[in-house]
Amino acid sequence: MKHNYLDNIPLSEAKERFFSLVCHSLETLKAENVETFLSAGRVTKNALYAKICSPHYNASAMDGISVKARDTYGASENTPVVLSKEQYTVVDTGDPIPDNHDAVIMVEDISEDEKGNVTIYSAVHPWQNVRQVGEDICMGDMIAPSLTVVTPSLCGAILAGGITHFEAVKRPVLGIIPTGDEIVPPTENPGKGDIIEFNSSIFSSMVKEWGGESRVYPIVKDKKDLLEAAVKKGTEECDVLLILAGSSAGRDDYTCEIIKNLGTVCVHGIAVKPGKPAVLGKIGEVPVVGLPGYPVSAIVIMENIVRDLVYRMGGLAVPEKKKVKAVLGKRIVSSLKYHEFVRVTLGKVGESFTAVPLMRGAGVVTSFTKADGILEIPQDSEGAEQGEEVEITLLKSADEISTSLIVTGSHDPMIDEIKDIMKKRGYPFTLSSSHVGSMGAINAIKSKSAHLGGIHLLDTQSGEYNKSYVEKYFPDGSAKLYKGVGRIQGLMVRKGNPLDIKDFSDVTRCVYVNRQLGSGTRILCDYLIGKYGIDKAKLEGYRNEEFTHTAVAALIASGNADCGLGIYSAAKMYGLDFIPVSTEKYGFLVNVKAESDEAVRAFFEILESDELKERLTQMGGYSF
Amino acid sequence: MKHNYLDNIPLSEAKERFFSLVCHSLETLKAENVETFLSAGRVTKNALYAKICSPHYNASAMDGISVKARDTYGASENTPVVLSKEQYTVVDTGDPIPDNHDAVIMVEDISEDEKGNVTIYSAVHPWQNVRQVGEDICMGDMIAPSLTVVTPSLCGAILAGGITHFEAVKRPVLGIIPTGDEIVPPTENPGKGDIIEFNSSIFSSMVKEWGGESRVYPIVKDKKDLLEAAVKKGTEECDVLLILAGSSAGRDDYTCEIIKNLGTVCVHGIAVKPGKPAVLGKIGEVPVVGLPGYPVSAIVIMENIVRDLVYRMGGLAVPEKKKVKAVLGKRIVSSLKYHEFVRVTLGKVGESFTAVPLMRGAGVVTSFTKADGILEIPQDSEGAEQGEEVEITLLKSADEISTSLIVTGSHDPMIDEIKDIMKKRGYPFTLSSSHVGSMGAINAIKSKSAHLGGIHLLDTQSGEYNKSYVEKYFPDGSAKLYKGVGRIQGLMVRKGNPLDIKDFSDVTRCVYVNRQLGSGTRILCDYLIGKYGIDKAKLEGYRNEEFTHTAVAALIASGNADCGLGIYSAAKMYGLDFIPVSTEKYGFLVNVKAESDEAVRAFFEILESDELKERLTQMGGYSF
Repeated sequence: MKHNYLDNIPLSEAKERFFSLVCHSLETLKAENVETFLSAGRVTKNALYAKICSPHYNASAMDGISVKARDTYGASENTPVVLSKEQYTVVDTGDPIPDNHDAVIMVEDISEDEKGNVTIYSAVHPWQNVRQVGEDICMGDMIAPSLTVVTPSLCGAILAGGITHFEAVKRPVLGIIPTGDEIVPPTENPGKGDIIEFNSSIFSSMVKEWGGESRVYPIVKDKKDLLEAAVKKGTEECDVLLILAGSSAGRDDYTCEIIKNLGTVCVHGIAVKPGKPAVLGKIGEVPVVGLPGYPVSAIVIMENIVRDLVYRMGGLAVPEKKKVKAVLGKRIVSSLKYHEFVRVTLGKVGESFTAVPLMRGAGVVTSFTKADGILEIPQDSEGAEQGEEVEITLLKSADEISTSLIVTGSHDPMIDEIKDIMKKRGYPFTLSSSHVGSMGAINAIKSKSAHLGGIHLLDTQSGEYNKSYVEKYFPDGSAKLYKGVGRIQGLMVRKGNPLDIKDFSDVTRCVYVNRQLGSGTRILCDYLIGKYGIDKAKLEGYRNEEFTHTAVAALIASGNADCGLGIYSAAKMYGLDFIPVSTEKYGFLVNVKAESDEAVRAFFEILESDELKERLTQMGGYSF
Repeated sequence: MKHNYLDNIPLSEAKERFFSLVCHSLETLKAENVETFLSAGRVTKNALYAKICSPHYNASAMDGISVKARDTYGASENTPVVLSKEQYTVVDTGDPIPDNHDAVIMVEDISEDEKGNVTIYSAVHPWQNVRQVGEDICMGDMIAPSLTVVTPSLCGAILAGGITHFEAVKRPVLGIIPTGDEIVPPTENPGKGDIIEFNSSIFSSMVKEWGGESRVYPIVKDKKDLLEAAVKKGTEECDVLLILAGSSAGRDDYTCEIIKNLGTVCVHGIAVKPGKPAVLGKIGEVPVVGLPGYPVSAIVIMENIVRDLVYRMGGLAVPEKKKVKAVLGKRIVSSLKYHEFVRVTLGKVGESFTAVPLMRGAGVVTSFTKADGILEIPQDSEGAEQGEEVEITLLKSADEISTSLIVTGSHDPMIDEIKDIMKKRGYPFTLSSSHVGSMGAINAIKSKSAHLGGIHLLDTQSGEYNKSYVEKYFPDGSAKLYKGVGRIQGLMVRKGNPLDIKDFSDVTRCVYVNRQLGSGTRILCDYLIGKYGIDKAKLEGYRNEEFTHTAVAALIASGNADCGLGIYSAAKMYGLDFIPVSTEKYGFLVNVKAESDEAVRAFFEILESDELKERLTQMGGYSF
């Protein structure tokens, strides 16, 4: 077992070292000849000057007749002028006007007799209704300076200036080499230990968004010679090389060593979290980045280092990331060793944004897909307190987030189904949901970080659901309870019930999997533990906490646990047996101030809809 | 000569008629199977549910050894625990942990002896350092609802959920048929009367920006049967058809008639300016739009009707256009007959944006490339006054515009060269220039709509340049004059000087081409007219006004005029003979408050640079 410690270089210093190492690639922009017709989105390498005028001849601006202006002088309603066939030429819009003519009369303003003479009732002055040579563009005029992004209309203007091809900045090509013995191409049926290679799809899509191109190479096994050959080939064929995984200092981590052998390493280990085990260097003139294997770690390195590189090599200014101020909805602790990037959801219920941190695991790619923004905690800070004002870097537009309906609380797949129906119906807002448990819902409604909160809270004294909690936590009536659905809770066990579980008292014979504190299901669990006089400390797996019904079901199906409490639909989905325990009321808490919001009304409309009922019936375990 | 009058239907009504006619295409979104790996930017047709868990096995989260957690209980610094070879397995990050193990100890936290026994100094609890099945994604969870745009990280999440392909909304394919006898493909050498077909490049680029695809068909001549065949083919192959030009009611305008023959026309003539002669209809289930031939007219119809169609057929919400408030820099008059779209430049010199209208000609595509935004004047309004607050729809980002250096005033190609050098040097701001003449510069500096104003104003009494004007218009010292360059002004005449022009007194024998009122060159012209006692009324072409030196040169080169005043570099560029008249001082007015702005300082730095001097020497006629 080999282990070397990495450096822990501050992000700004790491960037500085890297960009001075690869400055040649940043300053010497490569160019390629492009067809103007297809050039929208490209960046001009040099200034473009018109080769011809536009129009390049005197063109009629109207349908009508071209004339000599002086032939029309004196014409008026009372003194009309008649022009003979020889004095005019019929022209359509865009037609060249004859050399001896200098004006056009609109077809609407003339009357023609059988012989072809026309009568006009007002004079035209020279060049009236004529687009003279160069009206739009004059030969020699600069149509676009260097390093200009070609917009659709600029594309037209360049063509109008007679430029059919030009030198554009070459889009940097980023080679991406996925590595690892356990890595397999995308599949629906991975074997045990197979890791689906999805990182390269994320990074190649990011590169494209930043104006680069990507070339994804086949997966390379953890063999030093194979990887070295692949890296050599990559640096010959690409402008930048990204090596996925193997960037740390473990027994199979060859990235750093290979870059060192073939070129220069300037950083190995950056003081960011996630993202520490990154390697920065170059081989020949090609910048090379060793990215960590965890998707979220790698995304942090991509966003904070590679993004700048791609934009700059493409001749583009690096766009500033949009930021908003937000109130932190939950305390967050961070190490002094790292500059940390925390994914957060944002909601705007009242006047201000509330930011709620998402799961911080570096392997949780869905923390990025669910995130609305990033909270950066500097290296010298220990974190931030709940209620503190923080700055969030946006991943979505502030408008989209502002109009989002925030639904939080207890996990139920029903919320996702409502989200889907909302999308299908074309409402102008999206639903943003998170699973924080029923008690989390109460907190979120109290702190105005959500519009709606899903709860199923058993009053263990009365046996009733939800009501007494609302009375206790919202004595001022600032939140209302809306009826939701009935749900069957029960014990999920493996198919065939091999341990012969009959009721909750049998969990002592099992490895249990629990739900997180504050969830309605956990309250039910603790109530049943009390009722059956079970010793928590001796219940194996009691401390193994999950956040959703499907996560509990997944652990039972995989054999990590024998049983756990959850809803019927989750058991059904995973082919588990189900021993019903209770039918609970799943309701929605609404901030009364948000009650009449369009989005809240739409939510309840869908909740009552036959479309949703059909879907829930399909899933099973619900009553209405 | 045929002429029919068009309808004049208000824009909102035209849209309503059209979208109800083509509602089938909006509601029945087509789908196509896409590879997830390449799906970033695509839109999901239906909700996507994970097919597998991610991870789909219990994976080590660290490099280290997997163990049974209970074997480690009690380990501490004082009471280390020794594990034998049989009790652990070496695992790397991502490796599956053996079925009977449930925790991982980091490689950093163990010491190994020669026999392979390891000593540990702290216990691990079950599932510590293990990514349990479903940590990221649980089978059956909804990864994305319907009609979701796939981001790079979502692309990864979909793959992690075992979905290698899915149904995406088909990108609508817009067929584009350019028509017209005079239309030719892009070329550097168009013949007289040839119009370069650049509209289809503009529209296909726009369609791409809106998430659609385009298919540009070969140019079709103005023959009814040819066009009809092309339209039939287009409606068979595409989801939407755009027919360029022929949408009016002239003798060669067949678009409306053909759509009527093959399908339905719901609008012919919309009360917008520019853009009136548009046709809206459908053939079969394919929406068909006849676009006006003038690029700016067609862009207005594209932006205000086709844009919505493309987004909606692609399953996307139509993004709201960003708007800003601005002070109108110049009075604008508009007809009550039309909803007018005026291109404007925007500048932010003080606190607020100032909007200055650009040329309103429908054929001037550069009015779009130069524009920062659009001022809409509703149909029931006669225009807006100078100084009025107006709302501008942005064509660029407000940030980019806010940081732009606004240089206005007298035309000189030098400004474009400075702009180019600024771009090349990578300054974080752009230079936005417009030609409003020297007096326009004085007004712009006074009204704070520009940072810098280029002037060359002859004091006809003293023979001096600029100084007395600055004293007169800025007696309070609110603007300062900076030295610029010396320039030779003179009479441009055709090569070989066929009319044997010797000095300005000879212009009476010519067709003259003039500059606009307020320009320094016009002031010089009027001074010379006075000096030589010339009768303006009798000077042919005196009323033919152009805005730039190159435009004057272009008209002389093309034979529209015989001579005109201008700078040497313009004459040289067009191969004209040049009779020097005077050497003038071209200087820059600066608002003293903007004097120390970074962008202003950069401008003067470049103005003094050898790089600029070399370029101007190349162009000729300048002195420093």
